[in-house]
Amino acid sequence: MDLIPRLLAGESPALARAITLVENQHPDARELVARLYPHTGQARVIGITGPPGVGKSTLTDQLAVRFRQEGMPVGVVAVDPTSPFTGGAILGDRLRMTRAAGDPGVFIRSLATRGQLGGLSRATGDVIKLMDAAGRRLILLETVGTGQAEIDVMNYAHTTVVVAAPGLGDEIQAIKAGIMEIGDVFVVNKADREGADRTVAELEMMLDMAPDRGGDAWKPRVLRTVARDGTGVDEVLREVKAHWGHLEQAGRLQVWRRRQAEFELAGMVRSLAAARLLEWAHQTGVWAEVRDRVVERSLDPCAGAELLLREYREAFGRRAAKSPGTAGRRGEV
Amino acid sequence: MDLIPRLLAGESPALARAITLVENQHPDARELVARLYPHTGQARVIGITGPPGVGKSTLTDQLAVRFRQEGMPVGVVAVDPTSPFTGGAILGDRLRMTRAAGDPGVFIRSLATRGQLGGLSRATGDVIKLMDAAGRRLILLETVGTGQAEIDVMNYAHTTVVVAAPGLGDEIQAIKAGIMEIGDVFVVNKADREGADRTVAELEMMLDMAPDRGGDAWKPRVLRTVARDGTGVDEVLREVKAHWGHLEQAGRLQVWRRRQAEFELAGMVRSLAAARLLEWAHQTGVWAEVRDRVVERSLDPCAGAELLLREYREAFGRRAAKSPGTAGRRGEV
Repeated sequence: MDLIPRLLAGESPALARAITLVENQHPDARELVARLYPHTGQARVIGITGPPGVGKSTLTDQLAVRFRQEGMPVGVVAVDPTSPFTGGAILGDRLRMTRAAGDPGVFIRSLATRGQLGGLSRATGDVIKLMDAAGRRLILLETVGTGQAEIDVMNYAHTTVVVAAPGLGDEIQAIKAGIMEIGDVFVVNKADREGADRTVAELEMMLDMAPDRGGDAWKPRVLRTVARDGTGVDEVLREVKAHWGHLEQAGRLQVWRRRQAEFELAGMVRSLAAARLLEWAHQTGVWAEVRDRVVERSLDPCAGAELLLREYREAFGRRAAKSPGTAGRRGEV
Repeated sequence: MDLIPRLLAGESPALARAITLVENQHPDARELVARLYPHTGQARVIGITGPPGVGKSTLTDQLAVRFRQEGMPVGVVAVDPTSPFTGGAILGDRLRMTRAAGDPGVFIRSLATRGQLGGLSRATGDVIKLMDAAGRRLILLETVGTGQAEIDVMNYAHTTVVVAAPGLGDEIQAIKAGIMEIGDVFVVNKADREGADRTVAELEMMLDMAPDRGGDAWKPRVLRTVARDGTGVDEVLREVKAHWGHLEQAGRLQVWRRRQAEFELAGMVRSLAAARLLEWAHQTGVWAEVRDRVVERSLDPCAGAELLLREYREAFGRRAAKSPGTAGRRGEV
């Protein structure tokens, strides 16, 4: 834990080591994050998401360079929930972040957590906290793949940039289904290609059709970029800053902070509650008992899960009833 | 619930309606599955998985036709965990199942459950139960996409067929990472294409390098098919049947049934335990209290989750201590 003062001083090697501890679920990771937590909450997080091939990494690279030019220490987290089939996609993406990668003021880290439900979201939250505590005032959170897990991690972003590109006709339909609601800024990248006008028009139409969020709600706009040569990126930067300004008004930032905390808490409760119940059920043998009844078809799996939960709570009920406090009171009767 | 006798009689419209209830999470779905559960456990489930574009649907189609020719009522479940970006992929796949789709003895259903953690796995398990209860003795469970969720649903399959194809060099590496362990039969489809020998050799090498599972363990083989014209499909059928024969020996089927029940129970416990805890926390106001401490940074999210779980159990402990049973005993003292 001598890592902590060095990380708080903003030293990159300490930050890198801390992230590795978190990623490998090292036994010390839990305490490390807990001790750094009071030093977090300073960073702004910008999420960048969208289908593969639209140029998210190039745009992220351009944004990182611009924030650096304003003197901000920048962190980049590239999230890839490593499908068994897409492992290795990251390397190609990193190659596209050539400009920012050469700048020691930009700390870039890919995050590929596999398996475990909710594991990716938790790891992302922890890495953001570490970067935040290490003084990275601006964090770019980029998704690599396209799954629900990556849409979920956008809950960590103050501002979400949804990136599209011309010639992805079907993708636009798909974007509509999943991520229109989470976008604060929409970008049609590769806007020098044929079909850009149509893509912009389609996105604008979808935004028009979206339910009105009220009079003073943020109105997402659709911007155009050619991230490869930097065209339009300044406008994205301005729009992202305008969204910050909006978020800082009328208590909206506090609302965002509550929602973000709820998202993170709910994820942790999900994995923790199940883990403790399963541990108890295995230790007591209740697990094997219920499982065998399910195998014999005398209990359906859903009823089995209900039974396990009930027995778990009752076991703690009995324990509470037998605890010194209750026993003492009973002795007095 | 007049659906039940008709479903048990094997009527396709009743089966279709029941699946719709399950997919839409209709209030009656829970009881429907529970009442049909005692009538399940007869079907054999064959899983077919692999990267996109290798011809899984065509192979599934061919297998469905062959099982039909042997007089078996067949069900096909195509699983697509609908990433926000890939919605719509299913239709194309269905078009590839042209032969079996024209046969009323083959019941085909695509399953696209979005969002909710574990929702896809649960829906898949329920649909398999419905088909099973409706007398579909052979169920083909095909994955459309490529995520962890789809690897997970292979826990419902007695036999898992992993499909690859030549010219997917990187994919082979990826297959290695995630699904070598779950494959019982490996198929290199499009085996008339260049590079088929290399793909077969690579898969065989990976299988050779896999840790030995013991003397009488099943040894997966690598087969070749050209599913488009049916070449090699009979051999796949023979291998799948050989795997059944293996599973039926030496109590292995019972081991499989236990493992499958544990997978399903664990998934349900995960969602149920969290749902009940969160419901309680919201109702009592403990949720808002803990959330605000997380927002203020006086409690880190992980400690917050621990606190919520502890308070939840203690609340039930107090309730149990005050319950009639315990109160009665206390009265006797």
